[in-house]
Amino acid sequence: MVPRYSRPEMAAIWSPEARYRIWFEIEALAAEAMGQLGTIPAEDAAIIRQKGEPRAAGISAADLERIDAIERETRHDVIAFLTWMAEGIGDSARFMHQGLTSSDVLDTCLSVQMARAADLLLEDMDRLLAVLQRRAEEHKYTPTIGRSHGIHAEPTTFGLKLAGHYAEFTRNRARLVAAREEIATCAISGAVGTFAAVDPRVEAFVAEKLGLKVEPVSTQVIPRDRHAAFFCALAVVASGIERLATEVRHLQRSEVREAEEYFHPGQKGSSAMPHKRNPVLSENLTGIARLVRGYAVPALENVALWHERDISHSSVERVIGPDATIALDFALSRLTGMMDKLTIYPARMEANLESLGGVVHSQKVLLALTQAGLSREGAYRAVQRAAMATWSNLGSPDGKSFRDNLLADEEVAGQLDAAALDSAIDPQRDFRHVDTIFARVFGKG
Amino acid sequence: MVPRYSRPEMAAIWSPEARYRIWFEIEALAAEAMGQLGTIPAEDAAIIRQKGEPRAAGISAADLERIDAIERETRHDVIAFLTWMAEGIGDSARFMHQGLTSSDVLDTCLSVQMARAADLLLEDMDRLLAVLQRRAEEHKYTPTIGRSHGIHAEPTTFGLKLAGHYAEFTRNRARLVAAREEIATCAISGAVGTFAAVDPRVEAFVAEKLGLKVEPVSTQVIPRDRHAAFFCALAVVASGIERLATEVRHLQRSEVREAEEYFHPGQKGSSAMPHKRNPVLSENLTGIARLVRGYAVPALENVALWHERDISHSSVERVIGPDATIALDFALSRLTGMMDKLTIYPARMEANLESLGGVVHSQKVLLALTQAGLSREGAYRAVQRAAMATWSNLGSPDGKSFRDNLLADEEVAGQLDAAALDSAIDPQRDFRHVDTIFARVFGKG
Amino acid sequence: MVPRYSRPEMAAIWSPEARYRIWFEIEALAAEAMGQLGTIPAEDAAIIRQKGEPRAAGISAADLERIDAIERETRHDVIAFLTWMAEGIGDSARFMHQGLTSSDVLDTCLSVQMARAADLLLEDMDRLLAVLQRRAEEHKYTPTIGRSHGIHAEPTTFGLKLAGHYAEFTRNRARLVAAREEIATCAISGAVGTFAAVDPRVEAFVAEKLGLKVEPVSTQVIPRDRHAAFFCALAVVASGIERLATEVRHLQRSEVREAEEYFHPGQKGSSAMPHKRNPVLSENLTGIARLVRGYAVPALENVALWHERDISHSSVERVIGPDATIALDFALSRLTGMMDKLTIYPARMEANLESLGGVVHSQKVLLALTQAGLSREGAYRAVQRAAMATWSNLGSPDGKSFRDNLLADEEVAGQLDAAALDSAIDPQRDFRHVDTIFARVFGKG
Amino acid sequence: MVPRYSRPEMAAIWSPEARYRIWFEIEALAAEAMGQLGTIPAEDAAIIRQKGEPRAAGISAADLERIDAIERETRHDVIAFLTWMAEGIGDSARFMHQGLTSSDVLDTCLSVQMARAADLLLEDMDRLLAVLQRRAEEHKYTPTIGRSHGIHAEPTTFGLKLAGHYAEFTRNRARLVAAREEIATCAISGAVGTFAAVDPRVEAFVAEKLGLKVEPVSTQVIPRDRHAAFFCALAVVASGIERLATEVRHLQRSEVREAEEYFHPGQKGSSAMPHKRNPVLSENLTGIARLVRGYAVPALENVALWHERDISHSSVERVIGPDATIALDFALSRLTGMMDKLTIYPARMEANLESLGGVVHSQKVLLALTQAGLSREGAYRAVQRAAMATWSNLGSPDGKSFRDNLLADEEVAGQLDAAALDSAIDPQRDFRHVDTIFARVFGKG
Repeated sequence: MVPRYSRPEMAAIWSPEARYRIWFEIEALAAEAMGQLGTIPAEDAAIIRQKGEPRAAGISAADLERIDAIERETRHDVIAFLTWMAEGIGDSARFMHQGLTSSDVLDTCLSVQMARAADLLLEDMDRLLAVLQRRAEEHKYTPTIGRSHGIHAEPTTFGLKLAGHYAEFTRNRARLVAAREEIATCAISGAVGTFAAVDPRVEAFVAEKLGLKVEPVSTQVIPRDRHAAFFCALAVVASGIERLATEVRHLQRSEVREAEEYFHPGQKGSSAMPHKRNPVLSENLTGIARLVRGYAVPALENVALWHERDISHSSVERVIGPDATIALDFALSRLTGMMDKLTIYPARMEANLESLGGVVHSQKVLLALTQAGLSREGAYRAVQRAAMATWSNLGSPDGKSFRDNLLADEEVAGQLDAAALDSAIDPQRDFRHVDTIFARVFGKG
Repeated sequence: MVPRYSRPEMAAIWSPEARYRIWFEIEALAAEAMGQLGTIPAEDAAIIRQKGEPRAAGISAADLERIDAIERETRHDVIAFLTWMAEGIGDSARFMHQGLTSSDVLDTCLSVQMARAADLLLEDMDRLLAVLQRRAEEHKYTPTIGRSHGIHAEPTTFGLKLAGHYAEFTRNRARLVAAREEIATCAISGAVGTFAAVDPRVEAFVAEKLGLKVEPVSTQVIPRDRHAAFFCALAVVASGIERLATEVRHLQRSEVREAEEYFHPGQKGSSAMPHKRNPVLSENLTGIARLVRGYAVPALENVALWHERDISHSSVERVIGPDATIALDFALSRLTGMMDKLTIYPARMEANLESLGGVVHSQKVLLALTQAGLSREGAYRAVQRAAMATWSNLGSPDGKSFRDNLLADEEVAGQLDAAALDSAIDPQRDFRHVDTIFARVFGKG
Repeated sequence: MVPRYSRPEMAAIWSPEARYRIWFEIEALAAEAMGQLGTIPAEDAAIIRQKGEPRAAGISAADLERIDAIERETRHDVIAFLTWMAEGIGDSARFMHQGLTSSDVLDTCLSVQMARAADLLLEDMDRLLAVLQRRAEEHKYTPTIGRSHGIHAEPTTFGLKLAGHYAEFTRNRARLVAAREEIATCAISGAVGTFAAVDPRVEAFVAEKLGLKVEPVSTQVIPRDRHAAFFCALAVVASGIERLATEVRHLQRSEVREAEEYFHPGQKGSSAMPHKRNPVLSENLTGIARLVRGYAVPALENVALWHERDISHSSVERVIGPDATIALDFALSRLTGMMDKLTIYPARMEANLESLGGVVHSQKVLLALTQAGLSREGAYRAVQRAAMATWSNLGSPDGKSFRDNLLADEEVAGQLDAAALDSAIDPQRDFRHVDTIFARVFGKG
Repeated sequence: MVPRYSRPEMAAIWSPEARYRIWFEIEALAAEAMGQLGTIPAEDAAIIRQKGEPRAAGISAADLERIDAIERETRHDVIAFLTWMAEGIGDSARFMHQGLTSSDVLDTCLSVQMARAADLLLEDMDRLLAVLQRRAEEHKYTPTIGRSHGIHAEPTTFGLKLAGHYAEFTRNRARLVAAREEIATCAISGAVGTFAAVDPRVEAFVAEKLGLKVEPVSTQVIPRDRHAAFFCALAVVASGIERLATEVRHLQRSEVREAEEYFHPGQKGSSAMPHKRNPVLSENLTGIARLVRGYAVPALENVALWHERDISHSSVERVIGPDATIALDFALSRLTGMMDKLTIYPARMEANLESLGGVVHSQKVLLALTQAGLSREGAYRAVQRAAMATWSNLGSPDGKSFRDNLLADEEVAGQLDAAALDSAIDPQRDFRHVDTIFARVFGKG
């Protein structure tokens, strides 16, 4: 992922140094297990740990270059690493990797990396949820117009809007937890997964030490349906980010102006137009969501490997493993900051809410009329008539409010007098159940 | 979905008749709840049920045409349905849909349809799992070569191959269960989800009767992250189908011939070449997997609806709702039949296993040599030398087996005599842990 | 494709009857070519044409059922068709399909169908272009605000907006022409494309009669990169539809109201809210664009068939062949109707244009100040200062216009007096080059 | 893109230094045009060129850091660059960027970068085509079995296989040329594309100097359908790479062994199994093809920007611009090397061709029998009978060849004697038209 969209902690998970350290840890643990089982001499296992650990911990740029040089000859990354390790460990190194195949190391390492990445994403998510909850409670009763199809529908509150996004992100959190669970497995099962040359107890030992579960049946590789499900989960999370970003983009439109991304002192919105303050963060998040969704496509194609495995998944994962998690980490963090500092304009919300002459209360009148005895179709026609009259003359000097148009309509007036009408369209009716919904979402009354 | 890939039970879930029956059920239940709460007269609710239920149950082609005709005028599908219903129910019909918005009906109906579709898919999956388990146990110890990169690696058993697919499908089953859980929610919350005109107890009542959970916070619509997650789950399942289909396609290759799709009496493989017997079922499944994966892409784009909702998701779901579930149902069923009748050729497996002169035992020799004291690198070179000599002369008159090449190698012979070598490459070593793996997968020892 | 999104002329291309007629035509032409070459008796070729043509032309539902019944036995669609044909043609039928393989018929037929579909799409496109040009010229000088990031930027005209979409659709037209060219090829080359049993002159004859080009090298199948490119072109076209649909959705927003989809007498926007008039056509088009984009994904996966061919592409194409072209035909037609009848509100455009106190002229002031001698940075700061002061007090009683804020700014006033400022922000400057752009797009001055 | 899959020349196109140099060039050219037009003083334009060119050419790491620092304050990349430029150019810098908007610079720069990237890809393609042609001619008459469905079909030649891939890559070359044409446009049209503050002649001047075409109508941005079409073209090319890679993977399978990727001295195929030589290059290419296909998905979503533009496309393009072109450049280069050195085993091809007892000649017998007077159906049954008998007893001691089974069949023997049969299945018939096909593909006889 380009540096612009990378945060250091997530990027570090995918660094060569981190990868080699995990590789060493897997090899050292496997050797220790074999030492205990008597497959290899326990003292050699101890030497591997003793000499190898500082070597892995202190891996330098020169070491990376040395490993690359060996790989250029052997054309095999794990063998290059083992050779470099052997150069530091000495004779005992011949007991490393006994009965293992490269994928035992590579795939278990990838599991560790993806689990760590998921942990960071879960921390990101918790911060986002906290911000969303705070802003939702802050605006629990801030009235704003609800819009379907981009058209004013009925009043809602800004807090309810945020509660909906909060609820979506709690589902996304659960999806990340499930996705982490999916990929946190360990396979040390040998060349085709039969344990022909390695005892299953080695796998159990390594898995437990690394906090992973044992892969029930592997075939040199950990099956790629797990990884596909992981990247699909990221794609769903990214789409949730886009939904909230899209909301902010709409609210910041010049004609709406109900909310605005924080505009920094010194910030410039446009090189040409000094008046501009643009929702660039939320637009940026929209693009990143597209990227993360796109990464799910090759991940799904990776599932159907040939026979016990082919290596076509590898180039895909070398790229999308870091790219998808780094981009999503960046996006969650950016979204959290953006929502934390989002400027809300309740007065504009109020103004917009009232800008259509009251037609947004049409349903409540419809119900009152049917309750009063009109047929559904008749009531609908009457209310639509008054609403369209209001709408068509918005802003014109002889325009009337929806209420006045209704009272002037004989069919309506025959059923409802002014008092009954005012009672029907009382805006407090709209917010009666906000508390109920908040209790459902945030778990309190 | 085209009839060729449709099975009647799944297709029926998506028929107009089924949809209208569910719509009626939602409206009738909502009316009953409102009758109990006193929002509408209980007797009208009873009349709605009494007159409406047979009308919905007996919906005819002429009725469908009548509803379409109303929709052509109103350009609104739910209003068209309600109008048609009112024509049969009479005056009480004005109490239908009180305080509801169309999406309350449409989205809850879609939840019911998707849950039913998931139930069918789960039944499909159970049949597939049963077949895979039976075939796996049948071939638990049928030796076959394991292949990585399409190249012979080490022996495994055909039962182990199938156990791996069985395990993947148990994960896919769990994903379907989770996906069903995701979308089985009910929303009866009104125009922007505030319950402004409908009591939340109506939603609770309808949800319980339909076996759904209440959507904690809706915004006229049920949030589309649920649906996206559902279609992603189908995409992962489809990819698992492709993995098994790809295995069969490989096994049936002319050069491999280890398994073959059942060839029916009277079947013709090619219009031009009467000798052909092609793996057309598994190739067909590969294509269907591509389709189902493709449907996840628009489902993910559907998440970021505008504000409280726009209707862009609707055209997508009218198509991929049926198409993805019908295609997957067909594919699971076809795969089950294919695996049930798959002809297995153990003799060919044996012949292929032995066709490379024994080089497939190279790892076991490598380990024996390092145990005997050679460095890992030295042992590797020696074994690679013997393997390449064997491989290069396969089928040539002066070609030697891998065993003979090893014994002729001074470096090897210095560490291992013939007896030690034979012990190292004893094929029984390969299958020592088959039982352990089967216990992990099928839950018994 | 579901009937709701299908138009009869495009659907007819993909009907079984149409397909069988094309199959017959290919077989009959091939027989005629072979008759001329002496490969088969010319009189038998004549009988095939004579008896077969009415049989194909008059194919009935009963015939379709008969063909299906044969296919259920042979499990081969082309053989089923040939058998049914033979039942009507008699003994001469044994000279049909001589040296051909099924794919010769299937793939050439698909080329014919896709070319016909492309022709319909091109007609759709021409109608759309005509409507866009008419509306663009109608509103060539209708002022409206241009928006970047959803924020008011600078004035433009509604005609220019449409000219941009017109230009994009001319590119899309060219892409469709290229895509049609790509897939309009004919292959009659036998089982693996070697012409082992069929003379290349047969292919040339059939190709010419069908208006196709000869496929230079086929491998039983026409290579699938052609089809992938075709579906990618459809995906790009669909995305262009979405861009225009998105514009309309934005313009119809309640806060913007600059344009509106035609609202039919009798139409109902919402079952709950009688006041609603929603941009449902453009939202629908947005969803259909997602579908058509999604179909490109499996089309791309279809390219890498195994060896000379496998049949995995077939199930994909049976679905997306019709689905993508039918959906796109529907979408182009719907878009054309929508744009034809789109209600435009120039007064609202004017009002919105002026709603921000004139800050939309900020760039012109910036340029005048730098021309007058201020540094770019200094001028930027001064203009931004005045713009933000205007913006922040919009609608407040003591708010001042951008012009007044500028004149009150010492740094600005030191460079520009009122007359110079008014000259700088003269709105006529914005439209000086509209004619030039129209000439570029529509080819006249 | 990760360094592992990056080649320096393509990566350099996307470096910050390269980008800033192009930005400067655009600004300098625009200033020169304005100097000529008298919009700004010609001497200032000259100073901009004179002082700015070495500054841009010599941009250092410290400069990059300085630009980043300014961007951290202004949060605007183009303004940061202009400010840094002004620090070196001095007072004349205030005449840079006059009437331009950032996107004029950004989008025209992206066009230059994509055009350069396309040029490199075309050079890659030419090298690949040269190698494919050489290998195709080398093996023009090397017999090998053609396979449909992975099943032996009829003989073909290895040269014909390669000719098919060559033809596909010539189509891919044409697609790249068209895609380059698509994106090689220049827009210098100001804030919303109206040329309100910049003369269209400036655009024409810059375009001509950069070798670009003028964008007929832009809206601050160059329309993104162009870029979508570009990335779709890359996706189709990548799929063609996968098709050839898949062929090689199949040919190298242990059971097939007809071709093999070059195995370097010192190379190790597996850390566990010294005998392994795996088709890792072609598997790697398969994965890269998935990546490049995946990048088309967000590119298509980028088309429908809001109004005159939003900036959601930008994050997508910052990533996939480099990633897709760098990956494809790497893949084309790797494929070229792989095909150049691919080891071909004609003897294995011959052996495989003959391994099914001759059933691969079934069609020729079918045709001979129908010519001799049998009905198509009768002939088919007779030939299928003999073929299945041959196939079922392959390798068994009492198995007979297809020829012998045919001669032993009464129905066949009644029509064809041994001489007639041998004439029908003469393998030379299969290669009669190889020359014709080569002439079609390579343009000579």
